[in-house]
Amino acid sequence: MNYNGKRVPAVVIKRLPRYYRYLGELLKQDIQRISSNALSEKMKVTASQIRQDFNYFGGFGQQGYGYNVAYLHNEIGEILGLKEGYTTIIVGAGYLGHALANHNAFEKRGFRLSAIFDNDTQKIGSIINGHRVQDTALMEEYVREHNIDIAILTLPRSAVEETAERLAECGIKGFWNYSYAELKLKHKVAVENVHLSDSLMTLSYKIKQGNDE
Amino acid sequence: MNYNGKRVPAVVIKRLPRYYRYLGELLKQDIQRISSNALSEKMKVTASQIRQDFNYFGGFGQQGYGYNVAYLHNEIGEILGLKEGYTTIIVGAGYLGHALANHNAFEKRGFRLSAIFDNDTQKIGSIINGHRVQDTALMEEYVREHNIDIAILTLPRSAVEETAERLAECGIKGFWNYSYAELKLKHKVAVENVHLSDSLMTLSYKIKQGNDE
Repeated sequence: MNYNGKRVPAVVIKRLPRYYRYLGELLKQDIQRISSNALSEKMKVTASQIRQDFNYFGGFGQQGYGYNVAYLHNEIGEILGLKEGYTTIIVGAGYLGHALANHNAFEKRGFRLSAIFDNDTQKIGSIINGHRVQDTALMEEYVREHNIDIAILTLPRSAVEETAERLAECGIKGFWNYSYAELKLKHKVAVENVHLSDSLMTLSYKIKQGNDE
Repeated sequence: MNYNGKRVPAVVIKRLPRYYRYLGELLKQDIQRISSNALSEKMKVTASQIRQDFNYFGGFGQQGYGYNVAYLHNEIGEILGLKEGYTTIIVGAGYLGHALANHNAFEKRGFRLSAIFDNDTQKIGSIINGHRVQDTALMEEYVREHNIDIAILTLPRSAVEETAERLAECGIKGFWNYSYAELKLKHKVAVENVHLSDSLMTLSYKIKQGNDE
């Protein structure tokens, strides 16, 4: 994955949200500086790996004195694009759609839920966390009119590809895809596939191999 | 994280479920061999990284002729502990608990849902995917009697630590923790924390930096 045109390994990008989350916790505790060793211990990544990671983005300096927590938190948030503020819709008002619609942490990180869609007449019109579920037939018009950035896809696997293609044509910028189908789209749109069972398998590994963290 | 007493980097372990999933898809398509290059392209990891990954577990051989898909799938499943078969309970019958209880993919991977618990009298007695929600007061007895392996924690952050400690005392082996609280337990139990917003932040990065995959 690229940063300012430079290639950055996907594993490094995947660590950024974890750094961001942890630095956010430190901020809440009013901790202003952290040594690379302390950060290393917490993140379970070597101190040299942390320096390597940060070097992809300019290094963030100040290693002798440790890192300035607020500065680092802000810079990483900037790189992650969290300052932009995104509007989102959920497509698929099943249990997972409900769960995500009720998840206030996303809003805090700048992802504002704008609307929820479903094609099931039983669900259309019901209220989820203050949003009236709308008919997916109205989805394209809504996305265009409200400049929606991200679609959270929690609909059945069989329907996801066609739905994503329709949304891509309306200019959606990213898909957060929970539908266990790989999207092969004609349009270039950012996609993040969520596979919940991956972390369940990781837990299984830890149990089997006797690891407790 | 260790494998047979040897230290294996956490990033390598995290890739195993992805390998396993992809090999499973190949099996479904009746593909019997795959070159390390083709595997590399699909996994977005270099071929040399794949060899390095596999070397932690003995290498799985046969690189000249490509990998035997069924063999590799089976071996990785073994390493992940997926052959063991686990019994699970869900603690917290909210929307996320509902969503996970209705997620049939877990059962296919050997994680059998045995019971669901909640302490809300409004929820106790209701049926979720064939399971009657039980009072958490009965949880310890149930876990001991049915030799439950894994607790899926989908309860509020404020309650999770105390609940996990109670379950650890009954011999639970692993926690799949959706409660956004880090568990500091007296007992040594495998823990896998799920942070859904990490992948949303990764999506934000891709949008901001113009990456489409």
